[in-house]
Amino acid sequence: MASRDPDELVAAATNGDRAAVARLISLVERGGESAYTVGRLVHPRGGTAYTVGITGPPGAGKSTLTDRLIGSLRGQGHEVGVLAVDPSSPFTGGAFLADRVRMQERATDAGVFIRSMATRGHLGGLALATPEAIRVLDAAGFPFVLVETVGVGQMEVEIAGQADTTVVVLTPGAGDAMQANKAGLLEVADVFVVNKADRPGVGELERDLGAMLDMDMRMGDWRPPIVRTTATSGEGVAELWETVAKHRSHLEQTGQLDERRARRLTDELRQIVLHRLEQKAYSVAGGQEFSRLRDAVVARELDPYSAAEELLAGLDA
Amino acid sequence: MASRDPDELVAAATNGDRAAVARLISLVERGGESAYTVGRLVHPRGGTAYTVGITGPPGAGKSTLTDRLIGSLRGQGHEVGVLAVDPSSPFTGGAFLADRVRMQERATDAGVFIRSMATRGHLGGLALATPEAIRVLDAAGFPFVLVETVGVGQMEVEIAGQADTTVVVLTPGAGDAMQANKAGLLEVADVFVVNKADRPGVGELERDLGAMLDMDMRMGDWRPPIVRTTATSGEGVAELWETVAKHRSHLEQTGQLDERRARRLTDELRQIVLHRLEQKAYSVAGGQEFSRLRDAVVARELDPYSAAEELLAGLDA
Repeated sequence: MASRDPDELVAAATNGDRAAVARLISLVERGGESAYTVGRLVHPRGGTAYTVGITGPPGAGKSTLTDRLIGSLRGQGHEVGVLAVDPSSPFTGGAFLADRVRMQERATDAGVFIRSMATRGHLGGLALATPEAIRVLDAAGFPFVLVETVGVGQMEVEIAGQADTTVVVLTPGAGDAMQANKAGLLEVADVFVVNKADRPGVGELERDLGAMLDMDMRMGDWRPPIVRTTATSGEGVAELWETVAKHRSHLEQTGQLDERRARRLTDELRQIVLHRLEQKAYSVAGGQEFSRLRDAVVARELDPYSAAEELLAGLDA
Repeated sequence: MASRDPDELVAAATNGDRAAVARLISLVERGGESAYTVGRLVHPRGGTAYTVGITGPPGAGKSTLTDRLIGSLRGQGHEVGVLAVDPSSPFTGGAFLADRVRMQERATDAGVFIRSMATRGHLGGLALATPEAIRVLDAAGFPFVLVETVGVGQMEVEIAGQADTTVVVLTPGAGDAMQANKAGLLEVADVFVVNKADRPGVGELERDLGAMLDMDMRMGDWRPPIVRTTATSGEGVAELWETVAKHRSHLEQTGQLDERRARRLTDELRQIVLHRLEQKAYSVAGGQEFSRLRDAVVARELDPYSAAEELLAGLDA
């Protein structure tokens, strides 16, 4: 199988070959020319998958909640693709604990495809590899793709915020509202989940969130609802999925879904152009050349603009 | 005077000609080749000015406080350069109200140079024009440069955070601690000022700030002190300046001042390289070409990687 080329893999993936899907995502993760080939092949075949981002602080119960959502979707007969993305661990090698646990439970279900993503050298890292992996799952015919990110760093928030609907999971009693605010989660949240809602402090967290939403100026015609869940028992998960569906309807009816997706692709195109240029500049100039020029700038033997020109001169050669 | 070339202007500026300083900053603001020439000329002559960034939400009293600091420095016999930077108002045309007020008061004092900065087309905007303007003031021999930014947007925070010491000004009773936290001010603050300290809520604001500082993991060996001021009466301003001086000593004694400055120059070099590449890519490809390719990507006739390649192909021609 390893010898199959991207064309064959894409054909197989769209015919339900899960091993081919996995292999395509590996290609995407590794970056380079074959990743671009995969992108070229899968992009025209996509556009039907609905993506749901799930993010929040560590320990909020995102993995359990994601697993519950998989259960809900499977109960309704939908196939589902899941990406677990951890930008903070570049060397997890494609599987972390929560994933392995779920893999065991879901391994026998051909309607579920779960995959961990790690930075493997893809130019632009996971921020660019993730939308490509989503496109692979989209082209493979999954009507729903869940993207779970692990932490609340800038990259995690950025990745989760690129979904059609972004779910932010918080827990009571942990000062989560303020941390979420600080991490920029308020800006990307379409739906808030107060998980572990059987614990004390639910009302306080909801009040804090409400106050922050009241202060937020950027809000449009959708105020992120707050849904209580207890992922371990499954309570509230059905309501969460209904809320996601309601958000989807809202986006579709107002034309915002197409707008969001067009904006995402535009941003992605800009990012790719910039990353390729950056790579080009530094590869032509070479790391040593950059260091040499930087040292000269710091020593005030050279100004930053002349240094930039020297670095860029290599490009035209 | 308008006909003097950058070489002559720099020579005049270093000999105390304030009109030449103003003209050099205008060149820097406008960007283009003569801005680069100015950069080349002033960078080797600098490195002695100590820069203090002053930022915080609108209405916190930053202008009044800056004016008080100017007074303190003048009282000690120091000359001082002041940049008032407002990235949110690209068309202020170089002077806003607070500035004009101060201009009147300080106009007769040759030891003070005050200048508003607005985006005039400098590539990379004020984030790149501000360090260049600082270099002009540095080369002109000002031992202190105060950089006041107007709001708390990402750009304002970035600009204020590029100083040797960054002062974040807040006021009691306005929920400022949380907003400051959200705006990323906690990360750039070296000194906090609770201004309008004659109003109620000072203790609460200090408690909130303290709690946030306790939670902040990124802190090194300097915990930002909180200084109370009443800028309108001048109370606390002497203590504020002593605190800034203490921070400077700390940076100098630990070697962090040189590190900070080297890091800032490295970041600036990277930014310049990227901005020039971006400009190059878009100017070669043309705005229409980008729009056409983006539309093709959104319509799924083309994938983002192929579109990026087409945009970049123009570069090699």
